[in-house]
Amino acid sequence: MVTIQDIANECGVSISTVSKALNGGHDISEALRSEILDKAVAMGYTSRKAKKRQNRRLVVFVENMEFDTPDQFGYDIVLGFRQAAGKEEWAVDVINVTPEFQDEKPYDAYMLEKGYSGSFALGFSLKDPWMEQFNYTRVPTALLDNMIPMNPYVCNIGTDSEEGIGLAVEHLISLGHEKIAFLNGSVDSLVSNQRMSAYLRTIVKNHIPVDPALAIYSYFIADAAHYHVPNLLNAGATAIICGNDLLAEGVIESVRDCGLRVPEDVSVIGFDDIPTSAEFDPPITSIRQDRLALGRNGYYVLHAILNSVAQSISMLRAELVVRSSTAVAKPRLVTDRSIDKDSVMYQNPDLYNARY
Amino acid sequence: MVTIQDIANECGVSISTVSKALNGGHDISEALRSEILDKAVAMGYTSRKAKKRQNRRLVVFVENMEFDTPDQFGYDIVLGFRQAAGKEEWAVDVINVTPEFQDEKPYDAYMLEKGYSGSFALGFSLKDPWMEQFNYTRVPTALLDNMIPMNPYVCNIGTDSEEGIGLAVEHLISLGHEKIAFLNGSVDSLVSNQRMSAYLRTIVKNHIPVDPALAIYSYFIADAAHYHVPNLLNAGATAIICGNDLLAEGVIESVRDCGLRVPEDVSVIGFDDIPTSAEFDPPITSIRQDRLALGRNGYYVLHAILNSVAQSISMLRAELVVRSSTAVAKPRLVTDRSIDKDSVMYQNPDLYNARY
Repeated sequence: MVTIQDIANECGVSISTVSKALNGGHDISEALRSEILDKAVAMGYTSRKAKKRQNRRLVVFVENMEFDTPDQFGYDIVLGFRQAAGKEEWAVDVINVTPEFQDEKPYDAYMLEKGYSGSFALGFSLKDPWMEQFNYTRVPTALLDNMIPMNPYVCNIGTDSEEGIGLAVEHLISLGHEKIAFLNGSVDSLVSNQRMSAYLRTIVKNHIPVDPALAIYSYFIADAAHYHVPNLLNAGATAIICGNDLLAEGVIESVRDCGLRVPEDVSVIGFDDIPTSAEFDPPITSIRQDRLALGRNGYYVLHAILNSVAQSISMLRAELVVRSSTAVAKPRLVTDRSIDKDSVMYQNPDLYNARY
Repeated sequence: MVTIQDIANECGVSISTVSKALNGGHDISEALRSEILDKAVAMGYTSRKAKKRQNRRLVVFVENMEFDTPDQFGYDIVLGFRQAAGKEEWAVDVINVTPEFQDEKPYDAYMLEKGYSGSFALGFSLKDPWMEQFNYTRVPTALLDNMIPMNPYVCNIGTDSEEGIGLAVEHLISLGHEKIAFLNGSVDSLVSNQRMSAYLRTIVKNHIPVDPALAIYSYFIADAAHYHVPNLLNAGATAIICGNDLLAEGVIESVRDCGLRVPEDVSVIGFDDIPTSAEFDPPITSIRQDRLALGRNGYYVLHAILNSVAQSISMLRAELVVRSSTAVAKPRLVTDRSIDKDSVMYQNPDLYNARY
């Protein structure tokens, strides 16, 4: 096991200088502190502080996700994590991060300096500086909705999108729908691709031909709906499954702008079941992610990794909450068969060509 | 919440009769006991006994798997489970089960009668009577190497086969192999199919054409090798990845029976890294399942489900342990291109035709 003495020898400084660097002492230059931290990380040093019972600290990093009030997506996730970790006497810090923040200090050096034993990373994107570093970190990390291959210290955590989308498609089929559209989120997101793949597979499994005009990537925001909904309706869609609930809200408004009703003319399903879905007009049928359970699971995953159980994937069940935005199908004529450039056919041809 | 009184009312018997049925009292007919237990299960009754701190009991059910001595596959799994559960003051029973045992009593009724709060099910096959019942059980269940859809009380647990097979294929490619065979286990097994799919995907990803003569289903026993190895060698295989280590041992012997050497002429890789793999001649390169960690994870999964965190899939990292059964490729001539009937092409055409 690497000691402070080893690091001092390696850097050619005294033990007390190393200690200052590791513990945030003031009379040491930032350049020297950086050098010592980098060396300590490279040597695999684990702070003894982080191992002591009285200094059990975990951190939740949040990016691109709101969590301050109960109606926001991240609120219950953070709460669930705090609950489960608190029960086992871990202190939890919650820190908003940006790409700039991540650029300031490498992930492992940051974690070592602050004395955190592990992190739960929410809302990170593939372009984040720390995302690349997660490939070789030795700090236990639970990563929501993203997959890092090989590294035994990082686990992908999320909700089983595949099962969720399957439930939604089959609910619509049971209501007589065949022209089922999927207005997905961003093509750059791992979960978007899993969901698209599950949509295509379930459609084919039910012997319905895949229509590329109905399988569309857009963005996880309500405004994205307005551009796509007229095309989906022209292509004959009687039901639209959405990448999230915000998109579903946008879709419902757009359907009305086109002079049609939800659910009488068009059924709409959201994803996530955020609190506003139940209050919307009409209340939205949604694929529920149990966010409190997701948060707790973030802690359970870190607990496992901290106990040398190298979890790779940890998924929760999805549940379909049926409300009033879905009803029996009312077929409509196809008026326009042109396919827009956000179709799965253009955006992710590998997925579309796959034989599901 | 359902009480003993409710059950008594429903069955038209006294509370004390219900209590006898639930607690294994003797002066009650087997027929009546069965009727009361079935009714209690149907009504969603949960024994108060199972909830009390002083009666925390879990059970490991083992089928088709030996676990008595450290060299057997199940030993460390059971040990790991006992370690993790014992730490949190759960008593653990380990019970060998057969299809006949399962036919005697429905799963939920058995668990209720014995007062178990959850189970870890090892080695179950798709044909087991309880397997069907896992679809609607309300007892927390961690199921090794099998997948039950939808049910929030059952979690699929295992090792990330996909990543493991990917590591093996890429190790062989880095040694210059292109004619890489996969001699898989049974076509009826979920993990076999995941591994075949990962093999095909990694081969294609590396721009090597898939040769159906090299992608074969057999059985998870050494003897299965003797029939297939001559065909694989005739088809030009310079490396053979095996569905498990026993199969790898059989393959090494068969390669020698054909007058060739391991690893000089043919490289061989096993799966599981059972204790005998390191002692074999030559020591076998193997995709390691950390069985102690698997066992611990069985407990962690039950702990999560018992805390209303409905885990669906929990996978551990696989690791490639490189020993002396793999070496630089030495190409050989193809002498026979006939494809045997256990090829993926015949056994699982969906998998083969898929575009990976």
